[in-house]
Amino acid sequence: MKKTITAPRRPSGFNEYLPPEQIEFNRLLDIIRGTYEKYGYSPIDTPDLELSEVLLAKGGGETEQQIYRFERGKNDLSLRFDLTVPLARYAAEHEGQLVFPFRRYHIGKVHRAERAQAGRFREFYQCDIDVIGSESSIIDAEFPAAINEIFERFGFGEFTIRINNRMVLNGFFEGIGLASVSAEVLRVIDKMEKIAPGELVTELEKVGLNSEQVEKVLAFTEISGTNDEVLDSLDALTIDNEMFCEGVAKLRQLVASLRAMSVPETRFKIDLKIARGLDYYTGTVYETILNDLPGVGSVCSGGRYDDLAGNYTNTKLTGVGISIGLSRLFYKLLEAGVIKSAQQSLAKVIIMLLDETAIPKALEAASQLRAAGVATIMHTEPGSIKKKFRYADRMGCRYVVVIGENELATGVLSIKDMQTGETREAPLNDLATLSLR
Amino acid sequence: MKKTITAPRRPSGFNEYLPPEQIEFNRLLDIIRGTYEKYGYSPIDTPDLELSEVLLAKGGGETEQQIYRFERGKNDLSLRFDLTVPLARYAAEHEGQLVFPFRRYHIGKVHRAERAQAGRFREFYQCDIDVIGSESSIIDAEFPAAINEIFERFGFGEFTIRINNRMVLNGFFEGIGLASVSAEVLRVIDKMEKIAPGELVTELEKVGLNSEQVEKVLAFTEISGTNDEVLDSLDALTIDNEMFCEGVAKLRQLVASLRAMSVPETRFKIDLKIARGLDYYTGTVYETILNDLPGVGSVCSGGRYDDLAGNYTNTKLTGVGISIGLSRLFYKLLEAGVIKSAQQSLAKVIIMLLDETAIPKALEAASQLRAAGVATIMHTEPGSIKKKFRYADRMGCRYVVVIGENELATGVLSIKDMQTGETREAPLNDLATLSLR
Repeated sequence: MKKTITAPRRPSGFNEYLPPEQIEFNRLLDIIRGTYEKYGYSPIDTPDLELSEVLLAKGGGETEQQIYRFERGKNDLSLRFDLTVPLARYAAEHEGQLVFPFRRYHIGKVHRAERAQAGRFREFYQCDIDVIGSESSIIDAEFPAAINEIFERFGFGEFTIRINNRMVLNGFFEGIGLASVSAEVLRVIDKMEKIAPGELVTELEKVGLNSEQVEKVLAFTEISGTNDEVLDSLDALTIDNEMFCEGVAKLRQLVASLRAMSVPETRFKIDLKIARGLDYYTGTVYETILNDLPGVGSVCSGGRYDDLAGNYTNTKLTGVGISIGLSRLFYKLLEAGVIKSAQQSLAKVIIMLLDETAIPKALEAASQLRAAGVATIMHTEPGSIKKKFRYADRMGCRYVVVIGENELATGVLSIKDMQTGETREAPLNDLATLSLR
Repeated sequence: MKKTITAPRRPSGFNEYLPPEQIEFNRLLDIIRGTYEKYGYSPIDTPDLELSEVLLAKGGGETEQQIYRFERGKNDLSLRFDLTVPLARYAAEHEGQLVFPFRRYHIGKVHRAERAQAGRFREFYQCDIDVIGSESSIIDAEFPAAINEIFERFGFGEFTIRINNRMVLNGFFEGIGLASVSAEVLRVIDKMEKIAPGELVTELEKVGLNSEQVEKVLAFTEISGTNDEVLDSLDALTIDNEMFCEGVAKLRQLVASLRAMSVPETRFKIDLKIARGLDYYTGTVYETILNDLPGVGSVCSGGRYDDLAGNYTNTKLTGVGISIGLSRLFYKLLEAGVIKSAQQSLAKVIIMLLDETAIPKALEAASQLRAAGVATIMHTEPGSIKKKFRYADRMGCRYVVVIGENELATGVLSIKDMQTGETREAPLNDLATLSLR
């Protein structure tokens, strides 16, 4: 009977890695998770599939077109496209059992049927932290502080966390008589870095701004300098608007808090152009740029919103949070050569047999090492010693232990350090004493 | 404008936990992952969605009915229903780049549209290890050894890893002239514990066994005793069949290997009735029972198969592995009261402010603690001190630090241990010295 072979392949836009890259990806995930936990966030894990009616309660929008949605039996189901809507559903569904302010982190895959292109995946990880139901904006400083720690530990070079406050923006527009079109103006500003200055004016005029208003908006967005200079420039505008003044005060507080938390001044920067498009941000907004790879765009963004779960509950739950899009970041940094893949295996030691009589002692040695916390591979394949060493080399394990007749007779093992080329000896029954970490 | 509220709910059969349970679930996942890594397995992570044509290359079967399958654009997509078929696809797709024997672990969610019932979820975690392309059956001992370590660290009480070898079964049937119906006989034996002895005979007769053969099969399945006794009883059968003898030898080797790896004799047991239904197992098979909760069934099973990726490549890749179904296990143990949920938060310390002047120092203190690796919550909400302590209590943090005017003036902080009721003091600028772990 002839076998039928199906070509092994994945749907377009769905990525996966070989172990050396996966090991490095997981190392970054662990840094994120460890930091989120250190900042006091609790884990949650929601289903990949939600009821479409619930997931799309907000309705409309660009994302709706990108949702993987299908019917199964009586259910209309959708794969979640982010972790924020499931968080809103979760917070509302379990409102009575959660302790507010509710701090959660969530690391999981989301799906979007985007147009496939390099580094733009249809399945990717999001790594989110949010605080739900907090009345205090002091905690807004925690997110850049956590991001600072994470990216510092990543070691991808310098980065800048851009901060702004939507109240400054909205208050400013209100102050110069543009309250009714502020959303449209914000959308134009959000595109500012991507379009030519002339085009910017045209777009602002299209929204209905007169030339005086265009000038004021341009002057506003041109404010720059150190964080203190920007705050002083905002004060100097003497905008007579309550929301504006409150926004500036909160921005000032955020800067002071980040200093109190020892976040280096070079790492955070007020950028009045940051609006983060989405309509629901109402306070602080964040985005993060890698200084050496600005083309990657924002690798981590978020902000504060007044009413997170309004579609699911009448309780007004505030939210503030930030999200790292690790899949895209990882892919881009791998492509740029900034991330180097790790070795094939996490194991430090590989134990090889010269003949079958060595099996019991080899198993014993492996158990001892593992009990001492040393990741160990038992390599029991038949073949020449040369072939075995080649395997050890390809796996990238640092130490190689060979057990044969000679070792059994003397009770002494040789441990070869593949990095230094040195060979050490240890008693067969006490390998763990070598502390091969 | 009246708001429309959509009831926040999940599709039936899709589970999620509150933080106290999630923290405990994650602790177990970490034990599994840490052990798998210590045994030298490398991580992989494959897409949740596969091309239906590829996922269902094997065709037919019960599982096909349970697959979440849908069309999107030109693609016919399916959510994976286990991690073994994606592993076969992965091994074949990346055959040229992988190092064989390929040891991988994979922890991820899978989806099956099963009939919804308590503890039977439509989305659940599988935690798998497999070795692909190994010619040596010595490594078969690694799986019970790893499982022994994991379940010991779980601390759910005693457990038994039942082992068998399909070559013993198949060789036995061949030896007594039942080779052509061995699959059917195995299926009956696999159900043995669930049906009455009389029914068993009827079912065997239905398969076409004469009374002599029925008696031999019953005698075979009644072999019991210690591992050595069972092995001796198998020898005593003097079955003149090569496969049978090889199977018994491998089983004997497995027992010896587990002893060499110091797996307690009470934890593994040859059980000749174990066949693990699936047609493709060809060697060692495993399943694991919790001694105090046998009703939960096998919580961890697997085995060896000759041809893992035969649907995707002409290369014959052997496979041997084991899988822990953590979602169901966790749910059942939670239900039985064996697993206790953890506290609301992983944080050890909660820092509270008496007034806004304390903000900078409180932020500084939080940063110091976190830099020292102590998970810390900054609680900046307004409200009475009583309300604040109530929050600390509900979150389950062990240490509470309150910062107000007095603390700022003296430069000395009080740290209250919520477990012992004791209060300790520390200088405001050097909280980390307390080692509040």
